[in-house]
Amino acid sequence: MDSDKLNFTHVRAGQPTMVDISEKSPNRRTAIAEARVELGADIIAKFTNNDLQGPKGPVFQTAIIAGTMAVKKTSELIPFCHPLPIENCTFQIIPNETDVTIRCEVSTSGKTGVEMEAMTGASIAALTAYDMCKALNKAIRIQDLRLISKTGGKSGDFHA
Amino acid sequence: MDSDKLNFTHVRAGQPTMVDISEKSPNRRTAIAEARVELGADIIAKFTNNDLQGPKGPVFQTAIIAGTMAVKKTSELIPFCHPLPIENCTFQIIPNETDVTIRCEVSTSGKTGVEMEAMTGASIAALTAYDMCKALNKAIRIQDLRLISKTGGKSGDFHA
Amino acid sequence: MDSDKLNFTHVRAGQPTMVDISEKSPNRRTAIAEARVELGADIIAKFTNNDLQGPKGPVFQTAIIAGTMAVKKTSELIPFCHPLPIENCTFQIIPNETDVTIRCEVSTSGKTGVEMEAMTGASIAALTAYDMCKALNKAIRIQDLRLISKTGGKSGDFHA
Amino acid sequence: MDSDKLNFTHVRAGQPTMVDISEKSPNRRTAIAEARVELGADIIAKFTNNDLQGPKGPVFQTAIIAGTMAVKKTSELIPFCHPLPIENCTFQIIPNETDVTIRCEVSTSGKTGVEMEAMTGASIAALTAYDMCKALNKAIRIQDLRLISKTGGKSGDFHA
Amino acid sequence: MDSDKLNFTHVRAGQPTMVDISEKSPNRRTAIAEARVELGADIIAKFTNNDLQGPKGPVFQTAIIAGTMAVKKTSELIPFCHPLPIENCTFQIIPNETDVTIRCEVSTSGKTGVEMEAMTGASIAALTAYDMCKALNKAIRIQDLRLISKTGGKSGDFHA
Amino acid sequence: MDSDKLNFTHVRAGQPTMVDISEKSPNRRTAIAEARVELGADIIAKFTNNDLQGPKGPVFQTAIIAGTMAVKKTSELIPFCHPLPIENCTFQIIPNETDVTIRCEVSTSGKTGVEMEAMTGASIAALTAYDMCKALNKAIRIQDLRLISKTGGKSGDFHA
Repeated sequence: MDSDKLNFTHVRAGQPTMVDISEKSPNRRTAIAEARVELGADIIAKFTNNDLQGPKGPVFQTAIIAGTMAVKKTSELIPFCHPLPIENCTFQIIPNETDVTIRCEVSTSGKTGVEMEAMTGASIAALTAYDMCKALNKAIRIQDLRLISKTGGKSGDFHA
Repeated sequence: MDSDKLNFTHVRAGQPTMVDISEKSPNRRTAIAEARVELGADIIAKFTNNDLQGPKGPVFQTAIIAGTMAVKKTSELIPFCHPLPIENCTFQIIPNETDVTIRCEVSTSGKTGVEMEAMTGASIAALTAYDMCKALNKAIRIQDLRLISKTGGKSGDFHA
Repeated sequence: MDSDKLNFTHVRAGQPTMVDISEKSPNRRTAIAEARVELGADIIAKFTNNDLQGPKGPVFQTAIIAGTMAVKKTSELIPFCHPLPIENCTFQIIPNETDVTIRCEVSTSGKTGVEMEAMTGASIAALTAYDMCKALNKAIRIQDLRLISKTGGKSGDFHA
Repeated sequence: MDSDKLNFTHVRAGQPTMVDISEKSPNRRTAIAEARVELGADIIAKFTNNDLQGPKGPVFQTAIIAGTMAVKKTSELIPFCHPLPIENCTFQIIPNETDVTIRCEVSTSGKTGVEMEAMTGASIAALTAYDMCKALNKAIRIQDLRLISKTGGKSGDFHA
Repeated sequence: MDSDKLNFTHVRAGQPTMVDISEKSPNRRTAIAEARVELGADIIAKFTNNDLQGPKGPVFQTAIIAGTMAVKKTSELIPFCHPLPIENCTFQIIPNETDVTIRCEVSTSGKTGVEMEAMTGASIAALTAYDMCKALNKAIRIQDLRLISKTGGKSGDFHA
Repeated sequence: MDSDKLNFTHVRAGQPTMVDISEKSPNRRTAIAEARVELGADIIAKFTNNDLQGPKGPVFQTAIIAGTMAVKKTSELIPFCHPLPIENCTFQIIPNETDVTIRCEVSTSGKTGVEMEAMTGASIAALTAYDMCKALNKAIRIQDLRLISKTGGKSGDFHA
């Protein structure tokens, strides 16, 4: 990549701006984003046995619900995001030894992609899990929040 | 830490719940949180020379504004956060070689702390920077979102 | 109905989830919902004579406006509702002897129905009428909040 | 009650208006509200055995989370409600033979009461349970949404 | 005024920022703002006779309700406004020959003033009146949106 | 114009109401609105030299961001506005001798126009500029908030 050619889509004449999507045509678009929440081995141990009657149920269900609601709020939170009709949003929670992976998949039929929706959903779900566990461990970190894949855009599909 | 003693403050009788703060007394509380946005060397090069007339101004000012507005929206995003009267919120943007550190400091006079506000502010500011740069680099990651310090709570101050 | 065959559309693998509507085709959809607010004979007496200059104007107009705004906010309030482009929303206020019926009709052109929008609109309009009258009667109840009809869905029209 | 003496607190000179609370002093206030969701015996049967791994977990946890978030949004939904610092909010879900009772308790330290917050919380939690079960039974009704008790106001405590 | 001495409270080190109010003490504060909506003589004629059963009732009551709700949303709309507990908010609608004056008065007990709340309330009430009349006259203008008075701040009271 | 023929689109049977757009067909629509913020010569002098490193950058960029976010929130603020998929939103800031003109252009593909979106965007951008400068001059006024043009509606294009 040649840095001289970099072009900020959201900056025009020195000012921040929305990208004009009015000439684009709507099509089916999906995006997947992921984050890892480093809860630590002690908290993870509380979640073993796939025990939905234990704290795992409330913790992860709350994270999923908060993440879903945040996906729908993305254009309110990120100043230059376009509002999009979210048609599906699913979460997967994958416990590892000392952390959990939170994966958020979003789809729409619109004129622009849902990367930011998937990123925002994964981020708020991770923050909610953090909130529900923070009394137990103040050193929890959220890591590797990133886009895993996107499909449907003019610039081609992307897979990390 | 003995995992048997871990107690989820937000889970009572198998159900998620808000923590009761009605018996606590209000006092001055602060929290600082941080995230690193791995933009990559090419984008960082665009931001050198402390150039506010270049893209840096719009990119980071948009991130600061989005982050500040998200701090005020925290109790709408995180299901069991209490609404708090935010009295101050400042951001620092510290460019490194291949990433930028976004630091968010929040203060209130209230019955509970502003950790989640600082974490949410840093997170949404980082996502906004990601949004404004994502056309240039699809592999941007947000790393190390974490609490740096908090003061004013009954359980004592915390410094990472 | 055989309870063994009941299938929760919003629960997959033990977790709450949005229903995927991406493969559905958009069409015209309407829904009507109703609630009764048992204000009591004394308050209803204040509203006779179709007197818009009396308290009835402000009370019911405020209820209609709050209900209309709530219809547009439904997907923010109900975690797994999809955002829909509301194209029409009307209210009817029908005074009875000791209560008023609040009827909310909503229409859209979308991939899923507007039942929840009509239910939420009737509910918030009823709560607003309650709020404006509660100083006069603490025993007000909201009754029979229910769907009256829906049209346009794949599963056929419904009339209560 | 003499209907001539009825005085609408929210109507002044023929116009709707907020009630002035600036001269009141803040104190601890609580309110409890309740609604019954008539899900029908078939759906209730799915929820027996206190089975959190079955649909009950997701259905009622989603209702509790939506209700808690709605409590915090009350002053956005009901036009003349004052914003209040919610300090506690808890839900109880009590299954009966053919319906469930949803009870919402709210507390604050403020200049006015939290009746509308408790009523709104019970209402949105009931609507969320309705949403999650409506594919199974279109005839679900929400009944008896009402105030159970309030404490802390100048006009004395209330118990239904 | 010496322009060299002008100091932007919301700009620090070239970046926009919130003003820190944590060291201020809370006290009673009020603000009044006003706007004029130039509806034109034809529309104003429809509103004569103080006719609440005619369009005036719905038009101005809708404006008052929208304005009141906007006052409570000010800190969501204006990036660096602090959230404040609104304790009173009233509107006056004063019809003139070819325009109406909309006056909004707000009060709080807080650490900073409610100027922006009063200005935002007057502005959104005026826009709502515009919206409800715009099919009749596309040339409606909103004029003279300004602060009329404020009291309670450290810098002394202000009267325009 | 004959005032007898004036017909309030938002009033039916004495009650405020949304306009039904369900039978209209979607097409490309744009609107431009403008406001002037009378900041006074002293503040304007601080903004000369197109100096983005001075206060102008933060002040006007904050106004643009707040305005863009308000455009997307219009249907939440104006009770009978329909939600629309905003596809573009741009701002121009034109400094004059004693004031600045803020121009907001919005476009959508929808069943109704974006006049209110453009008017709301210009209004909130102007209020944000006011907020950031109000410590320097309490007599700032917002003037001439009005529609400049609209295209795409059935009733034909409009140019002020």
